[in-house]
Amino acid sequence: MSEKLNGARALVQTLVNCGVDMCFANPGTSEMHAVTAFDSVSAIRPVLCLFEGVVTGAADGYGRIAGKPAATLMHLGPGLSNGLANLHNARRASTPIVNVVGDHATFHLQYDALLTSDIVGLARTVSSWVFESKSANTVAADAARAVQAARSAPGSIATLILPADTAWTPAERAAPALEYIRPARVEASTIKDVARLLSNGKRTAMLLRGPPLIGEGLEAAGRIQAKTGVRLLCDTFAPHAEAGAGRVPVDRIPYFAEQIVASLAGTEQLILVGSKPPVSFFGYPDKPSWGAPQGCVFSTLAFAHEDGVKALQDLADALGAASTPPPRMSLQLPEMPNGELNAVSVAQIIARLTPENAIYAEEAATAADALLTHLASARAHTHLPLAGGSIGQGVPLAVGAALAAPSRKVICAHGDGGAAYTLQALWTMAREKLDVTTVIYANRSYAILNIELQRVGAINVGHRALSMLDLHNPEMNWTKIASGLGVEASRASSCAEFASQYESAMKAKGPRLIEAMI
Amino acid sequence: MSEKLNGARALVQTLVNCGVDMCFANPGTSEMHAVTAFDSVSAIRPVLCLFEGVVTGAADGYGRIAGKPAATLMHLGPGLSNGLANLHNARRASTPIVNVVGDHATFHLQYDALLTSDIVGLARTVSSWVFESKSANTVAADAARAVQAARSAPGSIATLILPADTAWTPAERAAPALEYIRPARVEASTIKDVARLLSNGKRTAMLLRGPPLIGEGLEAAGRIQAKTGVRLLCDTFAPHAEAGAGRVPVDRIPYFAEQIVASLAGTEQLILVGSKPPVSFFGYPDKPSWGAPQGCVFSTLAFAHEDGVKALQDLADALGAASTPPPRMSLQLPEMPNGELNAVSVAQIIARLTPENAIYAEEAATAADALLTHLASARAHTHLPLAGGSIGQGVPLAVGAALAAPSRKVICAHGDGGAAYTLQALWTMAREKLDVTTVIYANRSYAILNIELQRVGAINVGHRALSMLDLHNPEMNWTKIASGLGVEASRASSCAEFASQYESAMKAKGPRLIEAMI
Repeated sequence: MSEKLNGARALVQTLVNCGVDMCFANPGTSEMHAVTAFDSVSAIRPVLCLFEGVVTGAADGYGRIAGKPAATLMHLGPGLSNGLANLHNARRASTPIVNVVGDHATFHLQYDALLTSDIVGLARTVSSWVFESKSANTVAADAARAVQAARSAPGSIATLILPADTAWTPAERAAPALEYIRPARVEASTIKDVARLLSNGKRTAMLLRGPPLIGEGLEAAGRIQAKTGVRLLCDTFAPHAEAGAGRVPVDRIPYFAEQIVASLAGTEQLILVGSKPPVSFFGYPDKPSWGAPQGCVFSTLAFAHEDGVKALQDLADALGAASTPPPRMSLQLPEMPNGELNAVSVAQIIARLTPENAIYAEEAATAADALLTHLASARAHTHLPLAGGSIGQGVPLAVGAALAAPSRKVICAHGDGGAAYTLQALWTMAREKLDVTTVIYANRSYAILNIELQRVGAINVGHRALSMLDLHNPEMNWTKIASGLGVEASRASSCAEFASQYESAMKAKGPRLIEAMI
Repeated sequence: MSEKLNGARALVQTLVNCGVDMCFANPGTSEMHAVTAFDSVSAIRPVLCLFEGVVTGAADGYGRIAGKPAATLMHLGPGLSNGLANLHNARRASTPIVNVVGDHATFHLQYDALLTSDIVGLARTVSSWVFESKSANTVAADAARAVQAARSAPGSIATLILPADTAWTPAERAAPALEYIRPARVEASTIKDVARLLSNGKRTAMLLRGPPLIGEGLEAAGRIQAKTGVRLLCDTFAPHAEAGAGRVPVDRIPYFAEQIVASLAGTEQLILVGSKPPVSFFGYPDKPSWGAPQGCVFSTLAFAHEDGVKALQDLADALGAASTPPPRMSLQLPEMPNGELNAVSVAQIIARLTPENAIYAEEAATAADALLTHLASARAHTHLPLAGGSIGQGVPLAVGAALAAPSRKVICAHGDGGAAYTLQALWTMAREKLDVTTVIYANRSYAILNIELQRVGAINVGHRALSMLDLHNPEMNWTKIASGLGVEASRASSCAEFASQYESAMKAKGPRLIEAMI
């Protein structure tokens, strides 16, 4: 293009130089120059979302699958505020994301105009790196540092605040990519120590998270398991897992505090690989927060910022397991169910009909147990759950995953309460023609809360309290909502209906939604 | 009820003691005891919302109309995050709100479980008062202080963080209401000074905001106007205004920087009554941020925390205008339009058909000018606009206004882009059977950005940039979306259709949505 470089264009070109090729956006006036930069820098793809919770959730899904950051483009403090909940989730997932948040022109900030707010204060709550650009000529270097921060191991959120005048003022040049911090090599002495632990005859488990839980990391863990009998574990909400037929089986730690304790009972040694000690999701009266048995000895093979994959490979070598074949899950598809449509039969149909190599963006809440149980021995797949516990992540997550892996089928399995948070993501699925099949578990309830109500010891529960957990009045009609947002949708009230609709969705390409009346 | 008092019940009873009778809620596990307290404390009404942006926007609408705070109940840091954008708006409106944000039990925080986050850091960005309760026995006193902070002049946001164990642990008693800071009386010398200014023959305007712009304040301002010829002004987004036939006319400062300058040209003195100097919404290259002419002298009759209403009355007395009749807008209803349906004809029909004493929760964006122009001489009404510039406020605002004034018709006039942010509010309208007629201006565009794109000096704008402002692909169908959320809806493509649907909505009670295809 012939026009002169300005800060916005230098920024966007720098993002591209640093390997960022996707930008989820909901821009406003202060981001108009960044938006026009998309015309001159074609190597980055702008994706419009109708709400910033979709922007950030999609960036999380993209980052988890692509293994590199997407950019976001949001409008001042309020735009960032709307994106914070899914940034919280992304932070917990260690997903690399580069936020670009527009701000008022530097000369305008002194007037405290209505949209002025504490952007740095907001950004700090989720970011490892926050910086406000000071001039058009430093924007490019700032952007390179933002990507550097986001990509440095183990991956994190970097937020660059871009005052409007630093975007529109002429700039000299874009910046090249900076070297970022690669995962640190674990020392040989640590490998030896852990190898010794694995040979001391104690009941030992290894808790894997991040890259150690997928690909080469999981394969190495499998060889170690086969050689030593160590139990392989992953967190309830491990942000990125690979499972299904042909994969090394890993036990998922259950959700509720007392289930965690039961699951870990008897464990004498727990080896952390990119993970932290297991704790319960919430604290309860008279229930433990700490999951491991008293006296269980914790050791760390690799911290999250270290190269856990290489550490597992080194450990396998040290154990003489370099060529030990790992255990592999065998394919076992459920029979087609005939009874009533519920969390189990939905899971059976999904497990039976979903093709190889699908990605599950899963926020199925109370229906998740049944789904994960049946998927464990279904066709090989990738699982992306609600990584930080803030509901309303799954539908945006599916958007980002589908853009990161356009050739793979994405299944978004979602509770209705959580899906209502960020339903605007359906519109972006339609706009970008993403190959996502969304299954809404329509139980018209915050069902998990009906369980939790008892568990936290609430007594004498009356109708006003119960009404706060109930979504029957009125009933959301997800078929209409999805259709109103441009996604082809249908409702299934029986196994036969669900199976037929799901099968048709698996055969087609493009966005579909099925409202499963469970 | 027979069960023993716990922290949550002491809290809710204290809120009631302090005059809080409405709670907008989206609870989770950590708020289950607060939820069960709604059963034993019946003097507070819990209203479930499907998203926290609805919770906080509704609390804003309630507070602006009721003149006292609603409570909110939200789930840890991510719940609060989702509510922050509309809290930003409420902060700008000086609306009193008491947020109750659940947190992990105090003993659970040390484990950094997934939902743990910096709630204080988040709350601080919008609150005048933030406190984390330390024990069940202090929760009641904490709640009384929170209400005190929220109600103290001019009204603000107080956020009380409630660890789950302080909610479920037995507590001794609820607390009584605390005295709060009433608006300070303006000194007689200030009244005299301003009276002198109004008699010095200079071209003078008085910028009213808050209570000075409504009721007795506006009446007094009208008497002063009639006596002295001072020009009465209000901000573009004055959070609460009363207008229409029989009311004192006030000039609204226009939106764009150069329009503000033109509107204030020649003003030699500007007297602030609860307001701040007018500045432009955004900063632009080569356009002024400061609205008043060079040399214009600013004086303050009353700061926002002072009693501007009494000051206006005192000023009227000092000017000998105690019994001067104020100017009053006369009723002038537009003719029924026949041409194409657009922002002007929609405004004409609304102005013509809306009954006396309606409340407008208005986020009409590019359609607002036409609407406000026609409403100025329509039947008397209350106007609640987007007070802080963060879009996605209007639909929740209508929910809160309707609950604060169940006998008044509420009109929610909304752009489609902004309405998509917090469309979940429609569900609460259906659930609570609120008498709200929502009009969606369906132009399938962030139309304001197409104007701003030129104004910020963006050049060589191509199709990728323009696609970021365009909502045609796919077209949202608001009739389906609303119906899916339980609200009766229809689409109008002509003046006749819109008039007929709007008239029917005005005659009925309960929620309706009309998608106006402009």
